[in-house]
Amino acid sequence: MTDGSSIRALVFDVFGTVVDWRGSIIDEGQELSRTAGLSVDWPRFADRWREMYGPSMDRVRRGEIPWRNLDALHRASLDELLVEFGVSALSEEQKAHLNCVWHRLRPWPEVVPAMQRLRSRFILGTLSNGNVSLLVNMAKHAGLPWDCVLSAELVHAYKPDAAVYQLAVDLLAEAPGEVMMVAAHQGDLRAAAKVGLRTAFVPRPLEWGPERKLDTSPDPAFDIVASGFDELAVALGV
Amino acid sequence: MTDGSSIRALVFDVFGTVVDWRGSIIDEGQELSRTAGLSVDWPRFADRWREMYGPSMDRVRRGEIPWRNLDALHRASLDELLVEFGVSALSEEQKAHLNCVWHRLRPWPEVVPAMQRLRSRFILGTLSNGNVSLLVNMAKHAGLPWDCVLSAELVHAYKPDAAVYQLAVDLLAEAPGEVMMVAAHQGDLRAAAKVGLRTAFVPRPLEWGPERKLDTSPDPAFDIVASGFDELAVALGV
Repeated sequence: MTDGSSIRALVFDVFGTVVDWRGSIIDEGQELSRTAGLSVDWPRFADRWREMYGPSMDRVRRGEIPWRNLDALHRASLDELLVEFGVSALSEEQKAHLNCVWHRLRPWPEVVPAMQRLRSRFILGTLSNGNVSLLVNMAKHAGLPWDCVLSAELVHAYKPDAAVYQLAVDLLAEAPGEVMMVAAHQGDLRAAAKVGLRTAFVPRPLEWGPERKLDTSPDPAFDIVASGFDELAVALGV
Repeated sequence: MTDGSSIRALVFDVFGTVVDWRGSIIDEGQELSRTAGLSVDWPRFADRWREMYGPSMDRVRRGEIPWRNLDALHRASLDELLVEFGVSALSEEQKAHLNCVWHRLRPWPEVVPAMQRLRSRFILGTLSNGNVSLLVNMAKHAGLPWDCVLSAELVHAYKPDAAVYQLAVDLLAEAPGEVMMVAAHQGDLRAAAKVGLRTAFVPRPLEWGPERKLDTSPDPAFDIVASGFDELAVALGV
């Protein structure tokens, strides 16, 4: 455990931790079905799109394709998915707009007010595999009060590559222990801890919807476990 | 001229353009004189410190010293200046705090309300030789509503190196012409224009105090010339 007195900056995983990607994509997809006359199982579409996320980054991580930012990886996955779901009625403009649904994801309900509290005491940054413009547009859309937008794009390597966590330390702190990684995913936190960051686990049991059971068990090594950003603020003494 | 319809992001020079470094350093220095019992000509001290800025970056640019961020360059200059001004009474803690006066500079009077207007339509980013933590701390201290903090530190090269301007294009736009550089310094804008950015010149005739005459003549190639960020907002149709 930690009381936050030695922490200077909190850096956040974004997809799943800060924003509800699944609910946002389903809602926007169903709206698109109404306006464009599509018949798509959007919950399944959202899950499939997100399931392609890891493998698409793996191709970059293994060097099979040169660096591409997440907008580009999402678009390649989307083009495959539209075939898989038999969707052929969308214009290029509609496809480009749909790909940017990741720029318009909505935060979990407690996030924005809790961030306002946390911000009075800590530097708040993203530390996401999302590209900078995706994260900036999302912040403007959702009112997320980041102090800075840090991204895998700045080091051309995807989490859990140590270079991403090291970037936050190099830019925001004198020592790794002054930075705390906040994430809903145990692997992200374990990789951050290897670089020396402190860790706060905020499980999001509904990230993949109500029917999929997630492993939300905390690692005993995590410094803080909190049910949401409001509980995180309390744990950090804000 | 431009009406702003093709612009996606405005990126700002910070020292002199957004904040009044000279007035801020003088005020904080005079306060330090009172509390620590120093006798220092703070207007001259501020000017000397800023005059060492260019030459200190030149040593990095020429490869004479490895990359160092601006906090480190400021500190090396400060240590020289304290000898030059015969100041020996400061503790290491006081020197470290004084060096961070650059994190506590105050904006010119119209800046924050005009940025709030501009922010409704454009992505607003720093594009400064200041390091990321300096810019983040300054923003928190002064209430500057940046959407993202871009810095020479991210490419380990100082403006007017093209890499700094290219970073803004790579991260925020599809094309260089969608990014506009806002600066009080003609050389910064000319270097940005070489990379293809649009340019807005906001002269700050009082940057070096009322007695030093500055060349504030605009280059006819600049897209916009404005007396402040409020006039810039009007020129951009916000």
